[in-house]
Amino acid sequence: MVTKKDIKFINSLKHKKFRHLNSSFIVEGKKSIAEFLDSDYELIKLFSVDCSIFNKIKNQIKIDKSLLRKISFLINPDDHLAIFKLSDAKPIDNNNLIIALESIRDPGNLGTIIRTCEWFGIKDIICSMNSVDCYSPKVIQSAMGSVSRVNITYLDLDTYLKSTKTIKIGASLNGKSIYQHNKSLDNGIIVFGNEANGISSGLFKLMDFNLSIPRFQNNNFPESLNLASSVGIILGEIKRKSI
Amino acid sequence: MVTKKDIKFINSLKHKKFRHLNSSFIVEGKKSIAEFLDSDYELIKLFSVDCSIFNKIKNQIKIDKSLLRKISFLINPDDHLAIFKLSDAKPIDNNNLIIALESIRDPGNLGTIIRTCEWFGIKDIICSMNSVDCYSPKVIQSAMGSVSRVNITYLDLDTYLKSTKTIKIGASLNGKSIYQHNKSLDNGIIVFGNEANGISSGLFKLMDFNLSIPRFQNNNFPESLNLASSVGIILGEIKRKSI
Repeated sequence: MVTKKDIKFINSLKHKKFRHLNSSFIVEGKKSIAEFLDSDYELIKLFSVDCSIFNKIKNQIKIDKSLLRKISFLINPDDHLAIFKLSDAKPIDNNNLIIALESIRDPGNLGTIIRTCEWFGIKDIICSMNSVDCYSPKVIQSAMGSVSRVNITYLDLDTYLKSTKTIKIGASLNGKSIYQHNKSLDNGIIVFGNEANGISSGLFKLMDFNLSIPRFQNNNFPESLNLASSVGIILGEIKRKSI
Repeated sequence: MVTKKDIKFINSLKHKKFRHLNSSFIVEGKKSIAEFLDSDYELIKLFSVDCSIFNKIKNQIKIDKSLLRKISFLINPDDHLAIFKLSDAKPIDNNNLIIALESIRDPGNLGTIIRTCEWFGIKDIICSMNSVDCYSPKVIQSAMGSVSRVNITYLDLDTYLKSTKTIKIGASLNGKSIYQHNKSLDNGIIVFGNEANGISSGLFKLMDFNLSIPRFQNNNFPESLNLASSVGIILGEIKRKSI
């Protein structure tokens, strides 16, 4: 049975505060839920319109479509909604290439970046404390299951970058062309700044060097690329050199 | 003065049907409006909280913030909202590299793709008729002004691809690695399929060859990349070869 309290609880998980207070977050859709079930995340409860899909799952409650619409965060809910337990990030592995994000605001961007990072074999993403929460429903949705496998750590980026000896590369509009940087990068931290403002001046000073994606246009438009696209293009180029 | 009829008219422009019936679309925000004013698009009317910003524009009406909130499509409106006249796409230039999109659904993806295409010097984007409308407010917003400069043509993609002799390259999950394709592409059409299903089997048959972005992961996850990210990564790699 689904009580009013359950519905209220699920709705509260839209908000970061309640997700962290209750160590719980929502995953929707058959595919994403299957990927989280296969991961280290622990299922708290699964609500299904059709219980035959995840028939081995015990903490499962059958609900009808109208109730699903009530509890879902999606416009077109996908038959299943699961509550998983938040877990702490694992230690960061400095032997691999790491992506660091400063003050990232857009949940769709973060989700896409997590998905892209997994595609390119990145195991660790570091986010500044004021970045959007990776357990936000929109991040989970646009990351398409990748949040279950990529290690995402929130920390004081300034302190972390000052304390680590790993090479630090800024992604900026005024760096060296990614096409001219001929070394492969098997480790190091590539830092991407906020969508509107780029890397802050404080962090910028900590970079060993900066890389840019050249613009193939001579009218100075557009001013910049979308952040998630930039991460993809830079990783595509860096990983090419590792083959 | 702003009448109730004006407000109703602006609200109707959320919908593709009314945009095309009235040959009008909305651009919001100082930067994007400035870029459209600098383009071939014709301004119909500009609503400004602060008329000093575009002080040379005659078709300008001063409004207050509360009215702006009423007519704006944004959660945080940006002081200016303009109505521009829709214009027909220009002829497609087959001497340049062209990006074709089949059944693209997500307005944020289309906007990001238009912005990325402009960055990489693409002049023409072709969309299948059932693709999301490039004058949708969300596309205009995520394209950051690039809709004013990139030529976007909606047409029957199947008929067009059958009729053109230009080389046709499919972006798919099972093509040749973009890193192994060593020729530069100064012209040709790169076709990207729908977000969920990729290129349809009908169009797939028309491709001369297919290109893929290699996955640097051996667990088959994630299943795919975000569409806009894929466009960026493929263009980043193709343009590298043209330097």
